[in-house]
Amino acid sequence: MHYENIFEEIVKEKEYIGYYNLVNQDTNAFKKYAKTVKQKNIIVIGIGGSTLGTYAIYKFLKHSKTLSKQLFFLETTDPIDIKSKIQNIDLQDTLFIIISKSGTTIETVSIFKYINSLIRCDKNNTLVITEHDSKLSVYAKKNDIQLFDIPKDVGGRFSVFSAVGLLPLAIVGIDIDKLLDGAREVYDSFFLKKEFYDRLLKKARFFTEYKNDFNINVVFSYSSRLEGFNKWYIQLWGESLAKIDIYNLRQGLTPIGIIGPIDQHSFLQLIVEGKRDKTVTVIKVENFDSDLKIPNVKLAGLEELDYLDGIKFSCLINKQADATIESINSFDDIPCDVITMDGVCEKSIASLMYEYELLTSLCAKFMDINAYDQPGVESGKVILKNKLKKENR
Amino acid sequence: MHYENIFEEIVKEKEYIGYYNLVNQDTNAFKKYAKTVKQKNIIVIGIGGSTLGTYAIYKFLKHSKTLSKQLFFLETTDPIDIKSKIQNIDLQDTLFIIISKSGTTIETVSIFKYINSLIRCDKNNTLVITEHDSKLSVYAKKNDIQLFDIPKDVGGRFSVFSAVGLLPLAIVGIDIDKLLDGAREVYDSFFLKKEFYDRLLKKARFFTEYKNDFNINVVFSYSSRLEGFNKWYIQLWGESLAKIDIYNLRQGLTPIGIIGPIDQHSFLQLIVEGKRDKTVTVIKVENFDSDLKIPNVKLAGLEELDYLDGIKFSCLINKQADATIESINSFDDIPCDVITMDGVCEKSIASLMYEYELLTSLCAKFMDINAYDQPGVESGKVILKNKLKKENR
Repeated sequence: MHYENIFEEIVKEKEYIGYYNLVNQDTNAFKKYAKTVKQKNIIVIGIGGSTLGTYAIYKFLKHSKTLSKQLFFLETTDPIDIKSKIQNIDLQDTLFIIISKSGTTIETVSIFKYINSLIRCDKNNTLVITEHDSKLSVYAKKNDIQLFDIPKDVGGRFSVFSAVGLLPLAIVGIDIDKLLDGAREVYDSFFLKKEFYDRLLKKARFFTEYKNDFNINVVFSYSSRLEGFNKWYIQLWGESLAKIDIYNLRQGLTPIGIIGPIDQHSFLQLIVEGKRDKTVTVIKVENFDSDLKIPNVKLAGLEELDYLDGIKFSCLINKQADATIESINSFDDIPCDVITMDGVCEKSIASLMYEYELLTSLCAKFMDINAYDQPGVESGKVILKNKLKKENR
Repeated sequence: MHYENIFEEIVKEKEYIGYYNLVNQDTNAFKKYAKTVKQKNIIVIGIGGSTLGTYAIYKFLKHSKTLSKQLFFLETTDPIDIKSKIQNIDLQDTLFIIISKSGTTIETVSIFKYINSLIRCDKNNTLVITEHDSKLSVYAKKNDIQLFDIPKDVGGRFSVFSAVGLLPLAIVGIDIDKLLDGAREVYDSFFLKKEFYDRLLKKARFFTEYKNDFNINVVFSYSSRLEGFNKWYIQLWGESLAKIDIYNLRQGLTPIGIIGPIDQHSFLQLIVEGKRDKTVTVIKVENFDSDLKIPNVKLAGLEELDYLDGIKFSCLINKQADATIESINSFDDIPCDVITMDGVCEKSIASLMYEYELLTSLCAKFMDINAYDQPGVESGKVILKNKLKKENR
């Protein structure tokens, strides 16, 4: 298949796959609602695609902006986790955002039921984001609770730029228009100017052409702020690209997300001396907007490290990234590319995420699979339901 | 190579590889020092093997025990991370524990220098854990700072049951004798009673015999409490088993750690429908010691989920694990085993970690590689040093 064909296929897909066009939506309803929220704490109850993208952006930005509210996530059914997270939050001063695309996600409804036993949830402290015809939307309508829609044609793991991500982020004070600006820049560059197009198509082609040699794709992010992005990438890549193809062959590229410099002390050995089964993408942040530096403090005995004195931490971490890149490239058999983010701001994280969404769609096209479903997890859900119904008989 | 040979090799290794015998050490000096600590906050400054094991145990236990102090970790050179972590801690009421095996870890010394510019670090608020003849030990001795030793024959990633892990954990109020009890049970069972021996050897043999088919080993932990364990496992497995073997061939098994049920919504699709390149080990916690349950709350519209009412969350999460196991086992080509931990207690986490240390040593023996060095990360360190020295000229 030629590049032009792939491009045409993606343009065709834009007609019925909704995430592409979220960059051009009107955000006024989100911003208007956000302004009405009085509560100081925002708890998102959701799991997987309903939380990972929001968390990725929030985690990236929260210490670099002065945000008016705090955002929390209740995702898991681990009882110790639920209890420990809730105990330090004033639930009287909390808005609960219930997010579930299907509307009947077991984890989400279970936790929401539990919250209902602690505090009355009604139109004053509850917000629902779901598909317009789900059971959860029925609940919202019956209780006169504000309801926002997840479009049918936007999959959960591609939903960060829909109400799923934008609404909670707008509520805590993140500039969602700047987020969309960042995503739109990538959209325009890819679809209109086609600048980006060549690089991204080459990358997708490489990943898929050599998928049997390099079945693992490592994202090595040099900032702890990108921990949430890594998790979001793992879902996006793992769920979208693991499918049975049109020839009935199992496909799948395995995502790994690691954080520098911490994981230089954990995973780098595996990259440089391990089996050649991994590609590596290093992500750097050009400008941390921080003056924090290593001071000229003399520690008797440790004088050999005085060459560190006066260096900014932002410089140190980027030199660590560069040293890792150089070290990987000193071998000629580890495919490695570098993405540099401008800064710790809305635009740069949104650009990065939209770029990864596009890359995922492109890889799926090259592999002749559907990036947007997840049939493999359904059978487990049926087994669970039967187990629980038996338990409660 | 036969099982008996491997066992003999491990017994021989016990003579010069120190971690095996940590289960039988005297902990009195640690407990005695711990009692003298008056500060409420404990900050460990370290990275990789100096923090991951401690974090794994602390994260597992902290919400299930009434601990007298809070433990924090400063690991990374990310300036935003350093600043945001420190700003909410009262440094006047903090003990700083500086941990570095080599004594000259760049991240650790950089952060410690920075801390020195914020507060005077001396024998009243600082503790050093390092090799007895390192530069950091010189610093401690010159400044009359309390010093604990990391034995030369105990590698960083195998050091959790040395002063590296036991001392910070004892200080915050975790029962370190019970930790060693848990590790010793596995030791005894493996080396003396040989009960455990067969299962563990079979597992190591399988992982290594089929390493070219299944080059990815997934640990699927069904509790958010095990997030730290997953990270520790990734370092242990990745750094120990990625080596060039005696025939000059690159070896390497890739560790992945995921958390259930959250990652059912992110990674399970890849396990069940993706390429068959993964083994899966599901870890369950039998007893969460929690009565938290889904209440009998009726949500109009969501009646179809009322079968959840009255079920304990601890039961729900374990049924979710069981459903995942059943779903994986419905395919006959995904190798899957299950580890069940008794409860959220010192003994069970220590047993699990010691079991994984043994398993790692066994796999290395089967692969004819040295589990205890990490030559691949050294070249990057040299490149970095040169870059930084140039920066500061």
